[in-house]
Formats: sequence, C-alpha cells, structure tokens
Amino acid sequence: MNEIFTARGSVLIAGATIDGSAVDIAIDEKGLIAGIGKDARKTIDADIVIDGTDRLAVPGLVNTHTHAAMSLLRGYADDMILQDWLSQKIWPLEAHLTGDDVYAGTRLACLEMIKSGTVAFNDMYFFMDRAADAVDEMGMRATLAYGFIDLSIPEKREAEIKATETLVSGIKARGNPRIQAAVGPHSIYTVSPEGLSWCAEYAREQGIGIHTHLSETEKEVVDCVAQFGKRPAALLDEHGCLTPRTVAAHCCWLDEAECRLLGERGVSASHNPASNMKLAVNRAMPYHWLRSSGANVSLGTDGCSSNNNLDMLEEMKFAALLQKFAWNSPTLLPAGEAVTMATAAGARALGTGPGTLTVGAPADIALLDARAVCTTPLYHADSNLVYACNGSAVMTVLCGGRVLMHEREVPGEEEIVREAAAAARSLVGRAEDA
Amino acid sequence: MNEIFTARGSVLIAGATIDGSAVDIAIDEKGLIAGIGKDARKTIDADIVIDGTDRLAVPGLVNTHTHAAMSLLRGYADDMILQDWLSQKIWPLEAHLTGDDVYAGTRLACLEMIKSGTVAFNDMYFFMDRAADAVDEMGMRATLAYGFIDLSIPEKREAEIKATETLVSGIKARGNPRIQAAVGPHSIYTVSPEGLSWCAEYAREQGIGIHTHLSETEKEVVDCVAQFGKRPAALLDEHGCLTPRTVAAHCCWLDEAECRLLGERGVSASHNPASNMKLAVNRAMPYHWLRSSGANVSLGTDGCSSNNNLDMLEEMKFAALLQKFAWNSPTLLPAGEAVTMATAAGARALGTGPGTLTVGAPADIALLDARAVCTTPLYHADSNLVYACNGSAVMTVLCGGRVLMHEREVPGEEEIVREAAAAARSLVGRAEDA
Repeated sequence: MNEIFTARGSVLIAGATIDGSAVDIAIDEKGLIAGIGKDARKTIDADIVIDGTDRLAVPGLVNTHTHAAMSLLRGYADDMILQDWLSQKIWPLEAHLTGDDVYAGTRLACLEMIKSGTVAFNDMYFFMDRAADAVDEMGMRATLAYGFIDLSIPEKREAEIKATETLVSGIKARGNPRIQAAVGPHSIYTVSPEGLSWCAEYAREQGIGIHTHLSETEKEVVDCVAQFGKRPAALLDEHGCLTPRTVAAHCCWLDEAECRLLGERGVSASHNPASNMKLAVNRAMPYHWLRSSGANVSLGTDGCSSNNNLDMLEEMKFAALLQKFAWNSPTLLPAGEAVTMATAAGARALGTGPGTLTVGAPADIALLDARAVCTTPLYHADSNLVYACNGSAVMTVLCGGRVLMHEREVPGEEEIVREAAAAARSLVGRAEDA
Repeated sequence: MNEIFTARGSVLIAGATIDGSAVDIAIDEKGLIAGIGKDARKTIDADIVIDGTDRLAVPGLVNTHTHAAMSLLRGYADDMILQDWLSQKIWPLEAHLTGDDVYAGTRLACLEMIKSGTVAFNDMYFFMDRAADAVDEMGMRATLAYGFIDLSIPEKREAEIKATETLVSGIKARGNPRIQAAVGPHSIYTVSPEGLSWCAEYAREQGIGIHTHLSETEKEVVDCVAQFGKRPAALLDEHGCLTPRTVAAHCCWLDEAECRLLGERGVSASHNPASNMKLAVNRAMPYHWLRSSGANVSLGTDGCSSNNNLDMLEEMKFAALLQKFAWNSPTLLPAGEAVTMATAAGARALGTGPGTLTVGAPADIALLDARAVCTTPLYHADSNLVYACNGSAVMTVLCGGRVLMHEREVPGEEEIVREAAAAARSLVGRAEDA
C-alpha cells in the first residue's frame, strides 16, 4: 500500500489552487489546518507532502441525510409507486438484512463517498454498530442513528428505546472522535408522540443530535393535520424535537410558518433533491423561505435505493436546478450557495467544524483535478463544481489530515466492491428463498 | 500512442456483458457488427482484440441537441435571468468568437462526449466548417447545422441563406460518412416565415435534416399566438419544417394537439432537461403525450453554457427524474425508456443506424466498468446506467468500429484541454478589451 495512506504526522499540500491562487495548506499532527498561504510550507516540517499542482482545494463535502447500507439495494427496484416499492420490494428485502450486510453496504457507501469528495455523513438505519465498524475502518466522520419506529405500539417503543440506548452507549464507548451517535425518530407518522418526547429528552440528556424525516410527502402533512390538528413541524416542536442539533431531512411540504419555526429553533434542514424528484413528491423544499428564516440548509443524497448514488457533486447540481425549476426562478440557489450547503452548512449540521478551509479547522479537504474537461475553462470554480463536474473530478481526499484517497486510489477498493456484490447476491437469494 | 487507436481492420470485443451474459462482439473491416454471441469470435480473424471482461457493452450514446463549441463558455455566467444572461454575457462574448475558437471548443466538446460514452451529436452554431474539422479529427459522428437567424430582415436572410448553402456544400464536399449537414432555422421567434419556408425547401432539395428549437419558453408560445394566431408547432408545420428528418429541441410548452402533430409528421423531439431546469422554463416536456403520439423522443444536453456539461449518462438521470417530478408520476420514464431515448431514438433522429447492438448495425459501442461502485450491485443494468452512474464509468468507446477511447485514454487529451483553456482565456480577453 502507498505509504501516504499509512504514514502519520503533519501534512503539506503544496501549491494547490484556492480562489484562483496557488497556496500551501499546512496540516499539523492533530489533523488541523495550521496555515494557508503562499509560504505556509515554512510553518511546519511536513512528514507527508502532497503535490497540489493543478489541483483545486475545496472543503470536504458533508452528506446530511443518507441510509448508507442501502447501497446494497442500489437498483433493486425503481420506477414504482412509493407504497408498492416499499411494501413489495424494499421491506421484504430488508427483513433479511443482517449486521454483516450493513457492514458490507456501509463500506461500499463509504468508498463511494470518499471517491466523490465526501468526508462526513449523517446516517440512519439498523445494525448501526456494524455501520460504525465500517466508518471506523474507512476513516470518515459519521453521525449514526438507529431508525426509531414504534408505530404507536408500547412494546415496540420499549424495544426501540433499548436499541437506541444500546447504540448510543456503544458509540460513546468507542471513543472515536470521528464517530458520534444521534437519536433517530424516523418521522411523525412512524413514531408516537410518546416516542418523540422520549427521543427529544434522551438526546438532551446525552448531549447528542436528532435525525428525522420531515414533510417528505403531502400525505404526511394531511394525515398529521387530521390526526393532531397541527402540521408536522409544530408536532415535532411540541415534543421537543426541533433543536439546534436536529437535522430534518426532505422538508418538501413545509409552509412558510413552519420554515420560520425551523429558523427560530436553529434546526438544520437537509435538502434531498434527487430522491424527491425520483419518488415524485410533487413539491420542492421551499429553500427561499428556509434561507430567510435563518434555518441551516444543508444537502443530502438520501439512500441509494431512492437516488441511486451518493455523489454530492451531482446532488449540488440537482439542488441548484430543482430549486430554479420548481420555484420558477433562474437566480435561486446560485452555485456559491449550493457549495455552502454541501460544505459549511453540512459541517454545522453535524458539528464537525466550520466546513471551510481556514486555520484551526479540521483538515477535511478534497482536491479536484483543475485540468479535467469539467474544470475547463475555469472562470468561477463554484460553477464548475456545481454545474459541470461530478465526483470523478475528485483526486485526493483528506479527513482530519489523514489521506483517504490519493490520485483516485482508495486502499482496499476492489475487495470492498467484491464483498458488497457478494452480500447483495446473498441477501436477494435469502429473500427469494423465503 | 497505443496502437489500438491507430490500427485499422476487424475488431473483437471478447466476453463483454450484455443482458447479464458474457458474449463476443465481432466487428468487420467496414465498422459494422458482424456477430454477437458466445462464439462470435469464430466469425472473424480479428486485427484488434479488446478484452471485454468486467465490461458492460451498451450502444454508444447520441446527443440530439447541443452547441458544442459553447464548451468555451462553460461557467462564464450562470444563475441569471435568461434575457440578462444572453444580452449581458453570452452575446457580447460570442461577438468575438472566431473559427479557431469554434475548432478548439468543439474539440473539447468531442473529448468530453467521448469520455462519457457519446458517439454522435446534433450541433447548431457558427463557423461550422471548423466544427467539422474537429469532428473529423476526433472520429465521432455529427450532424452540423449553421444557426439560421434572420430576425425578419431581408438582407440578413440572404446572408443566412448563403451561409447555410456554403456549409452544406462544404460538408458534402468532405465526403466523410461520419459528418452530415442539416439546415438550422434557429426558432420561430428568430426566423421569419419566409426564412422557415426557405429552410424547409432547401432541406428537402438537399435531402438533409432540419434542426430547430421549439417551444422552450411560454413567452415563445404566447408571442407566436399573438403574432400568427397559431401555436409554434403549427407555424413550423405551415412552413414545411416538421418532417421525419426534423429534430425539435426542448418542446417544453407543447400542448396535446401539438404533440399529436409532431407524431403525425414523424418528428424527433430532443428532451433537454438540465438546461430547462437551469433556465427555469417552468414546464417539462410532455413526454407522456409525445410518447403516445408516436413522435421519436430523444435526448440532448444543450450547450455547455446552460447545462454545463455534455454527459449523457447524467442527462438520462435528469430526464427520468424531471419527468417523474414535473408530471407527478414515479412510474413515468422508467430507466429502460431513458436508455432508449439516449441510444436508439437518438440514432433514429440523426439517421446513424438502429442505435442498438445488433448484427449489421454500425459498431458504435460504449464499454462500462462492471466492477465500479456505480455498477455494484448490478440487478438491472439500465437502472445502474440511468440512476447511479455518470460518464466516468465509461472505459472504452468505439465509433464505426474505430476505437476512440480505451481504458479512459483518448489520444491528445492534454493538448485539447490546454488549447481550449487558452482559447477561452483569449476570447474573454478580447471581449473585455472591446
């Protein structure tokens, strides 16, 4: 293995391009950016030197809503009505899912994210202790939540509470600063009011975040109003689930008052444009209202069964184009704002740092090929990133100063792909035999 | 240079995957597919052998609407209102465009298309003789039209007629079977009725196609009805411009009767979803009406100034997702139909063959990495192609049996990128000095 992946110590990225200028990025032994500028190389005696020539340096991308292990279900079923798709295809397969599958699927997802410039992600699924094993190995950052679904059944609620507590204590016991737990009340239509209240209180006690789905479909809103006499965001708020450490995915059907509420509570929204389009939810997140409310609008891919990839560069393009199309404004969500959603806003949502290339920030960095077709010409780097490039332009990725990919090589790639393919074959085989 | 790019003769692609089986593809010296199957290698004594192991073979993609040389304007201006964008940014830059720029920009575009699996494209721009030089060198197929814009000024119309005649005779004089001319009446709002009639008649006389823009914006429809008392498709039809050799780009604002008219005339529509979303045209092509009318619905990227890339794999995803979202149906435009749009329908639109991998068809073939992350797992190849992969999964491209890319190497890539970057810098410099 190339020693760049195994060496530890300080790192110098020499002469990378930021805002049109060639600068050095010096990274200390703790994995923090120690200096940026023309002479930053003088500030450290680097153990590892990475040539930044013809490389654009950008903050590592942050995916604030996914179900990583669903990479094993990529392309298993598409082009169906949501309820049929879930009940006939996804749930029957998931019923046979094991911890080993989640490990194999999460490793594949981490590989895919690293290869497209993502350094951190917000995950919700099952067997999350095995997802943590994969994240630990792959060197990324992740916030892991067990998907809490009680369906208003008291016995099920007790089991979900226990599963959540087990995951949180297990993650804390790892003591890995890259991996944190969150509480994952799935949604207001799958979790009882009692369950929501428990999740909010437990998250507060443990000092951890909340990860939920909010207003993905119109049905969710209509049913909520019929059952509770209020809209979903108000219901979440009543049970204490809207906090500055809450990430609410989708947010398609929020009205203006709900957007203001999210802004007041300091909630992070996660925009998931490709998933919303593929499942035909019939409304795009009201980005303009959320932005003016002060809510923190970030970006996520959703799981591979409804996207079907984890490429945040592609997702930025979907976000910028969907907002323009759906709200009929070619000036809405310009490229620079899309980059902020995928970097600084994501890092703020997960508490992983400023999400910018600044002194003192964790060295979470992606280096893109500045001589690729998609970066030619290079008038405004944000435009090339959002509208022209996809994840394949990313050449090198560092997370906390550690090199996860260099010149598109990720250690163990072939084995990870092979084992994920085998796990998927076996999973489908078991489901079909059942 | 790898001799695979220079050798001529018969080609064997050994053991590539089609529909889940490993088969040989034998290509004769004329560049036609001579055999496909488990033992096709026995049918020829191949001069060139390409290992198809772990490669998915698919028909080469066909981009039915672009302005290739606008690759030089990639990212020059985005996130603006259409009229401001054109009048303040695009037109002032285009005023300084030279034939050398078009050559450099078209070479960059061809490189980008080859690297993402496209073998043929339908182009409309200026200095198209220089575009033909680029296409000739790069080995692709193209249908080239001069953008005819008379603005109802008789003197301008005479000049456009002359420019069109010069291009068509020049293309014919080349005698290159990969390059054909078309007549390019830009649109009903930039070409007079007399101009439209001349274009239709000249195309008929010359036995060539027509390439036009149709109903991209609501304003076009409203203005047309106000001025002519009929909608744009009816106006084009009145002047003879709707034929089985017509490609009509965009088609966003067609009503149901117009879709039926396009079907009756055997017109090819070109869906351009990314451009339509980015420019916020406020309506998606009514694919369901066009499909049921019998019109040939193909796919195009539009130019790089409004997309901003030429990746047809990405464009298939935008098409499938936009149709679902805009028409509120998760079952609309399933993956298999998106692949047909980008292959067989495109080839039919441009008359370049069946656009399928069948015996007797031109060997226009893309080989994708079947062990990439985006092709893992591989339940249904069409789904992986449309929803998970982008152009970077394409490893090898053949056009008419000639290898244009192998293992992602395209001869001359670095020089093409460098010269396009220099041309773009010089163009912007001249415009700013003016």
